[in-house]
Amino acid sequence: MMTTLSDPAVTPTVNDDKIFGTPFIKCLVRLIRAEDSYGLWRGKCNSELLAHFTVTEDQRRAIPIIGDPDPHVLWKLDIFYAAVGIAIEERSDLLVSRTMEVNQEGFGRVLFTTKRLVLLSKTLRDVHRFGFNTLRDCAKTGTRLVNDAVAVIKAYPDVARA
Amino acid sequence: MMTTLSDPAVTPTVNDDKIFGTPFIKCLVRLIRAEDSYGLWRGKCNSELLAHFTVTEDQRRAIPIIGDPDPHVLWKLDIFYAAVGIAIEERSDLLVSRTMEVNQEGFGRVLFTTKRLVLLSKTLRDVHRFGFNTLRDCAKTGTRLVNDAVAVIKAYPDVARA
Repeated sequence: MMTTLSDPAVTPTVNDDKIFGTPFIKCLVRLIRAEDSYGLWRGKCNSELLAHFTVTEDQRRAIPIIGDPDPHVLWKLDIFYAAVGIAIEERSDLLVSRTMEVNQEGFGRVLFTTKRLVLLSKTLRDVHRFGFNTLRDCAKTGTRLVNDAVAVIKAYPDVARA
Repeated sequence: MMTTLSDPAVTPTVNDDKIFGTPFIKCLVRLIRAEDSYGLWRGKCNSELLAHFTVTEDQRRAIPIIGDPDPHVLWKLDIFYAAVGIAIEERSDLLVSRTMEVNQEGFGRVLFTTKRLVLLSKTLRDVHRFGFNTLRDCAKTGTRLVNDAVAVIKAYPDVARA
């Protein structure tokens, strides 16, 4: 799905430089760039592309508490969790499957599995307000999810390869 | 969701009596009846309710090879796999979660998990043609799925309770 990235939520700060180097954010950027079939985003820097994953306090306040997720927010959700899956694969050298169920009201679940092992199970709620306060939060959350999944693989190495 | 059950696909035969006694079919009937909030199906016998899970050869031939699943077929899919989940819970005394992902073209996956263990993972395809040749097939498929899941729990008892 092609999405216009016209209004970055935040302007990048110098601090973000370190964040762009994290393996999770690298996966995320690679996935976003992979969807740019026509090279429309070639001129955009990484911080511009990633800005759509941040929702500031003020922006969040402007979103109704109850609402149906629109295609753009579903695209962000999809690509965020796809990046989590790829980052787990990179770290573990295993094939990871993702199953995501989101209903029309923005509630659901995302599951990461490999063979017989559940690596990660996360309840999704208020998907229409999906986004992180800062890019640092986005990187931290993604990295934490990847670390959790890798820890599970280490705890059950036989089941992950069964 | 309320669905009108006006055109049973097949007339029940005497042979079906044994099928109604299987634990899986009992679960399925119980789930269908649970959705009958207004008692509209109270006068219908079980074979009438279950007839919607059968699609005869001729009926299947009439359905296009490529098509989008309609709400009625999604309801059938949902209730069939919900019955599988409940039957696994009855047999194993464990809490089972189902995560089902179906895209608009009728492709996807259904996963049954309990704690860290994947009990069952099934690829869904051609969902718009979902149905069984006979009620016996429906009972056999459901029972096989339940047996498979229970065998997995027996093989990994610790992971299922982790």
